[in-house]
Amino acid sequence: MKHKDLTHSNSKSIPTASFPIHANKPSTLGKEHFLELMEESFSHAWFSNAGQHCSNLEKQLEQHLNVKHCILTANGTLAMLAVISSLTLSGKVILPAFTFTSTANVLSLLGLEPVFCDINPLTQNLDLNECEQLITSDVSAIIPTHLWGRATNIEAFEKLAKDHNIKLIFDAAHAFGNNYKGVPIASFGDAEVFSFHATKSFHTFEGGAITTDDETLAEKLRLFINFGFKDYDDIALIGINAKLSEAHCAMGLANLKCFGEITRRSKTIYLLYKKRLAEICGIDLVNYDGDCMNYHYIACSVSVNNRDSLIEMLHSKDIIARKYFSPGTHKLKPYSKNNIKLPITDLFADQTIILPGGSNITKQEVNYICDLISEFLKQREVANG
Amino acid sequence: MKHKDLTHSNSKSIPTASFPIHANKPSTLGKEHFLELMEESFSHAWFSNAGQHCSNLEKQLEQHLNVKHCILTANGTLAMLAVISSLTLSGKVILPAFTFTSTANVLSLLGLEPVFCDINPLTQNLDLNECEQLITSDVSAIIPTHLWGRATNIEAFEKLAKDHNIKLIFDAAHAFGNNYKGVPIASFGDAEVFSFHATKSFHTFEGGAITTDDETLAEKLRLFINFGFKDYDDIALIGINAKLSEAHCAMGLANLKCFGEITRRSKTIYLLYKKRLAEICGIDLVNYDGDCMNYHYIACSVSVNNRDSLIEMLHSKDIIARKYFSPGTHKLKPYSKNNIKLPITDLFADQTIILPGGSNITKQEVNYICDLISEFLKQREVANG
Repeated sequence: MKHKDLTHSNSKSIPTASFPIHANKPSTLGKEHFLELMEESFSHAWFSNAGQHCSNLEKQLEQHLNVKHCILTANGTLAMLAVISSLTLSGKVILPAFTFTSTANVLSLLGLEPVFCDINPLTQNLDLNECEQLITSDVSAIIPTHLWGRATNIEAFEKLAKDHNIKLIFDAAHAFGNNYKGVPIASFGDAEVFSFHATKSFHTFEGGAITTDDETLAEKLRLFINFGFKDYDDIALIGINAKLSEAHCAMGLANLKCFGEITRRSKTIYLLYKKRLAEICGIDLVNYDGDCMNYHYIACSVSVNNRDSLIEMLHSKDIIARKYFSPGTHKLKPYSKNNIKLPITDLFADQTIILPGGSNITKQEVNYICDLISEFLKQREVANG
Repeated sequence: MKHKDLTHSNSKSIPTASFPIHANKPSTLGKEHFLELMEESFSHAWFSNAGQHCSNLEKQLEQHLNVKHCILTANGTLAMLAVISSLTLSGKVILPAFTFTSTANVLSLLGLEPVFCDINPLTQNLDLNECEQLITSDVSAIIPTHLWGRATNIEAFEKLAKDHNIKLIFDAAHAFGNNYKGVPIASFGDAEVFSFHATKSFHTFEGGAITTDDETLAEKLRLFINFGFKDYDDIALIGINAKLSEAHCAMGLANLKCFGEITRRSKTIYLLYKKRLAEICGIDLVNYDGDCMNYHYIACSVSVNNRDSLIEMLHSKDIIARKYFSPGTHKLKPYSKNNIKLPITDLFADQTIILPGGSNITKQEVNYICDLISEFLKQREVANG
């Protein structure tokens, strides 16, 4: 990590920007409220273990998401670990490879086998038909994503899981604040898993959550994330420590209070990219309809020939654009030995670029980034004749 | 959780105390420095992922503990999970049952078998001879504790592990700031695991660490706690998210700065208990020599007949004394089916009581607690003739 809060030396620089410009720079709007809530924590000397910020945040999120249970965890990966353990999955679990590697890693650590399935090119989410073909008697669950926050085909996956009597967990890491047919993403499937990492639209520095309407599952999850303790000296099941601290919950309460402003700013940034990138040949922005309301990911497709060199150029200007998810999880070292073929995943892994978006970058920065991209792609076009 | 910051209604109350008085109320001495460091984090909008507070705290702890590598983790349980995974243990692992259940739970989740071993009554730490008798060809490691912060017989366990060519992890959850024969606890065995939970002598709200002099292990651990990422788009091994956030690291930096004052206050409290409890029949305080310098745990033995009723009386006065570790882990529901016999563990599990200690309680509170205990034990003596 390096911080340069200096005016950039490049002639194309913008004097007010803080370089490097990272993809998804965390929101800092909640700072003052966070500091107030920390004063309270210090006055009680209560910093974890079912403190009042944790209980308040869980209640507020349940209300915000219209779901019966929100169980906060130390991060999104531990949320996934908790729900996979608590649903007592076994054997194989189907999931996309065009997503972050954490779910596959959790499955592997718990002795389960991740079965990677290709995505639908129109949505970049898990392909329903491909998924159905992979269901065998030793598959115990499916974990579709809502990639870039855009809801997957929830009803179809719910029917599929029901027909095959297997569990359904939605990976909602990108989807906080978004809807599916007007209903908040949170209460679908057996459970949904959120990440509240600093780079997400809604963050608690590090954090995550499981949301569910299932009472029995919620009870098991609450035990699991606190070692299985039912009472001071009585444990009911084997759990670990996945509790979210009071400091992290305080950041959550602060960010929830200004989440409207966070999404308004993110939408402004997204719409500016939409306008600017529409004028540039060779780059396509992922489109959000009204049900994706966090507008957090500036996900673009660039031709395979240009993608890596475009990223390289942006990095040379201290703009830390990212290749997501490249390579797909199926081609990462721990999984590549199986030599799975996922052509659509490979295509998107080779052409996707994530540009700096969210609530904490400026219109000026967006214009600067778009100018650089425009100039770069024009030069490539000329060079390729 | 309930907070009552009111003057207690009981006639024996002390007007300045904040009830309930919890065992090991967290230190709040670092507050101002913590808030300053958070200002920095907000100014950079950098809240996790190898931030500067994390790197500073790791360096300062390596210096403080005179160890080559300190790898910070989101909590102590994840530190244990990281080191057990990174040492690629298999089969069985020997550990005490007179300790917190988290290590046994982590072993179970990872598909390993915890083998519970009895303790030495003089030290309450893992019994060396009993341990040796449990070593079979499928035992891959031993995890002795430094209970209440008092170092176990480190050299003897190092010899035992070497002779049998198995791994040795010390559970140093209680032992931050303590020495073994003048050398800081941190660099012994293959690794040592710390908890920096709010209730510990040195805390980061929630947090933990692995310390080791082993370069290869340290490198694997650093990969493991960040999903296995070797580079932006390259993972070398299967890991999870066990990173410590910048907010938690800021609390660590603040507490490390005032750790001298924390231990001075804890020592004063410990010495007052020592003086007062010596005058009371029927209760014995665990003794600390010069090498246990955090003086954090006020661990006492009370006759089996009196222990539970003494705890009950203290709870009725809003003094949240604790039974540690009662029952022993071998008798908790997930492990009790094996019906292991550990007589010394059972004895201590039935007679141990933890009184409120540490840097954040007052002499007045200690005197109040000791008065209550004295009166209660006198009445029990009279009642029992």
